[in-house]
Amino acid sequence: MSKTPIVEVINFGDELLVGIRENSHLVYLGEQLARYGLPIRRSRVITDEALEIRRAFLDAWNYSDVIITTGGLGPTADDKTRENIAAALGAELVFDPEIEAAIKARFSLLGYTMGKDHLRQCYRFANGEVLHNERGTAPGLVYAKDGKLLIMLPGPTQELTPMFEQLVLPKLQKIGALSAEEAYLQIRTCGSGESAVEQTMQPIVKANPELTVAYCVHYGIVDVRLSPRERSMPWEKLKAIGHEARELLGDDFVCFGHCSLAKVVVHELRALDRTLAVAESCTGGLLSNAFTNIAGATKFFVGGVVCYSNDVKVAQVGVPESILEQHGAVSPECAIAMASGIAERLSSDYGLSVTGYAGPDGGDDKNPVGTIHVGYHSPVGVWCKSFRYTGGRLDVKTRAVHAALDWMRRKLRQYKVEEFLCCGERD
Amino acid sequence: MSKTPIVEVINFGDELLVGIRENSHLVYLGEQLARYGLPIRRSRVITDEALEIRRAFLDAWNYSDVIITTGGLGPTADDKTRENIAAALGAELVFDPEIEAAIKARFSLLGYTMGKDHLRQCYRFANGEVLHNERGTAPGLVYAKDGKLLIMLPGPTQELTPMFEQLVLPKLQKIGALSAEEAYLQIRTCGSGESAVEQTMQPIVKANPELTVAYCVHYGIVDVRLSPRERSMPWEKLKAIGHEARELLGDDFVCFGHCSLAKVVVHELRALDRTLAVAESCTGGLLSNAFTNIAGATKFFVGGVVCYSNDVKVAQVGVPESILEQHGAVSPECAIAMASGIAERLSSDYGLSVTGYAGPDGGDDKNPVGTIHVGYHSPVGVWCKSFRYTGGRLDVKTRAVHAALDWMRRKLRQYKVEEFLCCGERD
Repeated sequence: MSKTPIVEVINFGDELLVGIRENSHLVYLGEQLARYGLPIRRSRVITDEALEIRRAFLDAWNYSDVIITTGGLGPTADDKTRENIAAALGAELVFDPEIEAAIKARFSLLGYTMGKDHLRQCYRFANGEVLHNERGTAPGLVYAKDGKLLIMLPGPTQELTPMFEQLVLPKLQKIGALSAEEAYLQIRTCGSGESAVEQTMQPIVKANPELTVAYCVHYGIVDVRLSPRERSMPWEKLKAIGHEARELLGDDFVCFGHCSLAKVVVHELRALDRTLAVAESCTGGLLSNAFTNIAGATKFFVGGVVCYSNDVKVAQVGVPESILEQHGAVSPECAIAMASGIAERLSSDYGLSVTGYAGPDGGDDKNPVGTIHVGYHSPVGVWCKSFRYTGGRLDVKTRAVHAALDWMRRKLRQYKVEEFLCCGERD
Repeated sequence: MSKTPIVEVINFGDELLVGIRENSHLVYLGEQLARYGLPIRRSRVITDEALEIRRAFLDAWNYSDVIITTGGLGPTADDKTRENIAAALGAELVFDPEIEAAIKARFSLLGYTMGKDHLRQCYRFANGEVLHNERGTAPGLVYAKDGKLLIMLPGPTQELTPMFEQLVLPKLQKIGALSAEEAYLQIRTCGSGESAVEQTMQPIVKANPELTVAYCVHYGIVDVRLSPRERSMPWEKLKAIGHEARELLGDDFVCFGHCSLAKVVVHELRALDRTLAVAESCTGGLLSNAFTNIAGATKFFVGGVVCYSNDVKVAQVGVPESILEQHGAVSPECAIAMASGIAERLSSDYGLSVTGYAGPDGGDDKNPVGTIHVGYHSPVGVWCKSFRYTGGRLDVKTRAVHAALDWMRRKLRQYKVEEFLCCGERD
């Protein structure tokens, strides 16, 4: 394909329209296609009804070059996508004994017999290709006409994902619709708001009009995505611009790509060969969970205590009762006692703690709802930092976890210097 | 409106097409509208480009009755939705001094001066209404013509949500497009797969052809949504059918509505006036987090230990070293020791524990990756139950948490009988 084709995605599924399920296929396909330089231009969600399918599909076929559909290929009477799209196109569907053989083989492997419902899944376009489904019965279907391309994928995620990555991506690369290399660079930042990051990025944006720059904010993390407008920009050039941006962003720079803050912290701990334990009150397990989402984190993350009640803070984390009495559980003093206490109790080098009011109840004049104190215990000292957030309980919890992880990440990088300065004091 | 209007949602935003962000507005609007009997019929996501907006909008305007747009109303040059939709409709936009005054007032409250960029946000349709934005600058816009209705909402969630609930829902109810009462009944189940639940529901589906029945599966939970095809069905009738379904579903029935499994467990603990502590290995904080997501759970959930390493299992949870040596950390014996140990250490009435291999590493012939052992300690005894799941690390963690919570929920309901049977033995 000479020009950049216009890609449209059509998702079938009533559950996407009545608030039952997120359209995760669109996120996935959008990410995959953008990564190789072919952003989705438009998308729609439609119900699996004959007239609706025909009308919407024809509108898409008239105005787009590559159409990718998801869903509606199942064996039940509800699934009418295949037949109605063929009717809209005036294309013939033919029974394919090879598909039947593949479905039969799959069923026999699972110890079942193929029912006649599944015969509907054995049809393909008369001049079309079949995409083998290694995780289910419905094969994907491909149809090309007048320079346009239709790719129909099954709805279940575990079937769609391998089919797309193993069969569709190479096909699109082969016809030149996708580039073989990654087409954008993502920079993850934390610590400044979206507008401050935009401000910092201004020199890069001005100096590189051939780039589009997009921002995405999630709970204190601001991702910056740099995409060349033309596919001709070499990857090396994009990387060089990325490194310039990194310089400008300073300590706010977290990583290139999609690494979680917890992963960055674990990466630093691995380099230092040190261990961490956490004590958390209002985040209630979410901070530990961020670490245990990382496969193999067990070598650096020894565990944690969710000390929701004061009794547990005293008995399991070793917070002195006098601190709770004098300063209360939501205080910098308690955060510090929790960080040092958990490191001692769990015999780790580092301790990280969070205490605060996630809301909607709790809080007082000095520490209103949304107040978060983070404690950090390290071999070179103990610190506390306080934050204040607005939003619902779950928002405050997530932001508190990001704040704690981001602060520890900064402290660990700072520590590399300190380690040098005070190396005589330790060991 | 006499017939049920066809609703179409148009979301503006390139970030929805390139995998940066989920279309959470569609989920939200779909849920809100379906709740009051007006399911969204179709939706599309389009980029904020003049020609694209005009073409797609006109297609929508021709085939739908109520069109709701989100996004594209911001003050920057990128935001061209207002002007292009007006051009597509051939409708005039007029400057509204009242909008200007509202934006100025908002800025002055925040200590800023209104910039001239924001003047673009002061326009409304010549014969249209304005929806006040209490959380941002861009007002919502309403335009009606030839029995069709256009509602334009701002993109930021914290602006869209209150505007929709406080201004748009009542407007749609007033014109009869939405019913005043909730229009569907959701039944949450856990413990059986989707096809088994469908099988169980067959007598209800057959006896009530006036209902549509939809299923949604998430990590072991199967939600069943019963919606009357006609709005004339009284709520009392729907509730009666719901109770019939509850009988058929037996112990798999969790609740009517959207209550989390953790909330159901806390509800039972509240009724018993008892407390719970948890010890978790492979779920790494996610089980504790499920409880601490509930506001006010602190009275029944005292805390937990994330005992990721064996040292922490011994030192903080009291698991005997001999059990770890003989049976290993991933064993029913260890799960039971964790459940009893955490209840004793944290002085709670109940203890719940999870140990297993979340993957991708770990596991052996006896306990392959995906094996989960759940321990349950209660005043009347200690039990273990084992599960095995496939999927990625995060999937296995989430399913393990649901399995543990569902099992505790069942045990607690069973316990009410046991409490009666063995009341002479305790106290």
